Amino acid sequence: MIKNYLLTPGPTPIPPRVLETMARPIIHHRTPEFQKIIQEVEEDLKYVYQTKNKVLIFAASGTGAMEGSVINLLSPGDKAIVVRGGKFGERFGEICKAYGIEFTAIDVEWGKAVDPEIIRNILEEDERRTTNHERRIKAVYTTLCETSTGVATDIEAVGKVLKNYEAALVVDAISGLAAMPIKTDEWGVDVCVSGSQKGLMIPPGLAFVSVSPKAWALIEKSTLPKYYFDFKAYKKALTKIDTPFTPAVNLVIALREALKIIKEESMDVIFDRHKKMAFSVRSAVKAMGLELFSPDAYSDGVTAVKVPQGIDGEKLVKTMRDKYGVGIAGGQDKVKGKIFRIATMGYITPSDLIVCMATLEAVLLDMGYKFQLGSGVRALEETLK
Amino acid sequence: MIKNYLLTPGPTPIPPRVLETMARPIIHHRTPEFQKIIQEVEEDLKYVYQTKNKVLIFAASGTGAMEGSVINLLSPGDKAIVVRGGKFGERFGEICKAYGIEFTAIDVEWGKAVDPEIIRNILEEDERRTTNHERRIKAVYTTLCETSTGVATDIEAVGKVLKNYEAALVVDAISGLAAMPIKTDEWGVDVCVSGSQKGLMIPPGLAFVSVSPKAWALIEKSTLPKYYFDFKAYKKALTKIDTPFTPAVNLVIALREALKIIKEESMDVIFDRHKKMAFSVRSAVKAMGLELFSPDAYSDGVTAVKVPQGIDGEKLVKTMRDKYGVGIAGGQDKVKGKIFRIATMGYITPSDLIVCMATLEAVLLDMGYKFQLGSGVRALEETLK
Repeated sequence: MIKNYLLTPGPTPIPPRVLETMARPIIHHRTPEFQKIIQEVEEDLKYVYQTKNKVLIFAASGTGAMEGSVINLLSPGDKAIVVRGGKFGERFGEICKAYGIEFTAIDVEWGKAVDPEIIRNILEEDERRTTNHERRIKAVYTTLCETSTGVATDIEAVGKVLKNYEAALVVDAISGLAAMPIKTDEWGVDVCVSGSQKGLMIPPGLAFVSVSPKAWALIEKSTLPKYYFDFKAYKKALTKIDTPFTPAVNLVIALREALKIIKEESMDVIFDRHKKMAFSVRSAVKAMGLELFSPDAYSDGVTAVKVPQGIDGEKLVKTMRDKYGVGIAGGQDKVKGKIFRIATMGYITPSDLIVCMATLEAVLLDMGYKFQLGSGVRALEETLK
Repeated sequence: MIKNYLLTPGPTPIPPRVLETMARPIIHHRTPEFQKIIQEVEEDLKYVYQTKNKVLIFAASGTGAMEGSVINLLSPGDKAIVVRGGKFGERFGEICKAYGIEFTAIDVEWGKAVDPEIIRNILEEDERRTTNHERRIKAVYTTLCETSTGVATDIEAVGKVLKNYEAALVVDAISGLAAMPIKTDEWGVDVCVSGSQKGLMIPPGLAFVSVSPKAWALIEKSTLPKYYFDFKAYKKALTKIDTPFTPAVNLVIALREALKIIKEESMDVIFDRHKKMAFSVRSAVKAMGLELFSPDAYSDGVTAVKVPQGIDGEKLVKTMRDKYGVGIAGGQDKVKGKIFRIATMGYITPSDLIVCMATLEAVLLDMGYKFQLGSGVRALEETLK
């Protein structure tokens, strides 16, 4: 007998109240019943996003909305800045490349956060060199919580920099929304991208963007080709409380329930809980003599830990999953086998962390890593109380 | 107390066995457990598609895969044929337009099917005029079952025409797959597009395409921009039993269960059942003195019926839904208020049809339509037995 615990940075576990909604008979999407759900979800997403802007919902993975944030804002010949400090920052670059958008890449060492001053310098230089406003950098693409490294970017600081420039701020908050603060309006985030399977606690399959008036102005001028992810079509449909294409009905219904849970707990309590859990995870792994992968820019949603020397990182993750039923994530791409990642997002609780840490201890002990057994769990107990 | 019956052409009702799978705790997508599911689903989709080609799965509505079938096959300057005999045929035209693809539209009167000879004539003319093979029409976009009109296209005949030409055949089978025959390989369908919420009996949120070797050859040359719907990325991931982006995990798991049900019943039995039910619906409405909207080209998935003179079509649909809990579809766009549509797709049974027809009779009687009460249900009983 094995009991499964999921502590991966997406999908994250789904609360039973939410799971139950998906087993209900389906309803048609062009009915007053579903329109009421669209309205509720739209309202509650604004609460989570801390925005007055429209929030658009797509039947897609988060990547679809990331693509949307490129093809709707830009036109051929436009320039952008892309902050690349992990797999998902790099993805923005790949999307720009696919659409022929010339971009200045800020390549940040994996495990570090971007210095907002670098963004300022590039924008300043661009402003000096480019007298024609229309030819200036149109958008800055960055990431709230880089899932691949656990790094959090100081979006508030980036937003402050951008207030003096014309470029729009696009933030991939897929791994951060509802796990750590993102004050969309206050911080000046023009397009905030997110997904369903992280802090929002429902299965993957929905993606979201909030769109500011400044972003809508760019969208009006954008000539890159688009259809399924055409923001204007979603905006137009929303005025009739409708969707341009068949929505993922039961995921939207699940979202309504998850948003109810979020409102019941309130954003501030949620952020405190995530912060405390992430702090506990960091304390626990440090107590076991392990090293954080991003000690200077950790996030509250996922913690990346270096695999200690002599230990097979992929085997560690696999053993925890297959022998103990505890799902954590390994490293991706250039840090494959070198890090493991423990999520503290959404419906992951202190009890899950206790089980996770005890399992990590058991497996590391088995694999020959030298540390004081119980030190991780003890540090959790000390910090979670 | 009201009991709901859904007879709309998507979403269609979901079997309890399938609903139940979606209430299970979520699993991670990069695990051997999910890889096994990908393999099973891929295999079973090939069975439903009657193909040896790869079938790609997207987290999206069907429209996303329709867009994919344009942007992956074509390049700027390419020419196409688009058969437009309803809302969804028109959508292919809108997508081509969004990407600057020059297309010859075959505008078919709503309620009629395209004459394959018209396609032949255009291709023949193009071949005569265009000596450079590279400049010839690259693809023909058409629809198996046009949801908006209930019309079925003779894809086998279209396929025969195309065998003599270089153009690829793309079929929107979103409303037809697993409801009426589509022999992908035998009929020469190069890209067959489908969606989850019709014959496949799961909620909306997944889209599919099968891709023939001929289509892959076009894809290799295609230079239209794409990212999320890049077929090559999905093909590449599939070789590692993976997906390029986070899949809609619980919808894929639901699909596995639905495909099991389909295999248990077998395609031939399913097609017979759909054919019989659609015939019964046609018989019933005719017995009530109603007129079919597409008497010459009806499909087995959805039947469109003309709203009789003096009856408010939108009120009819609304009353059936709100007073009796029976969901059927009204007309869209240019036939709004002029037709209603009864689906016989997926998990819709003879019992559902009996309830639907009795309700239709009750509401029409109430609205002042003159007919013999019981005639519709009696015709159903006669033909369903």
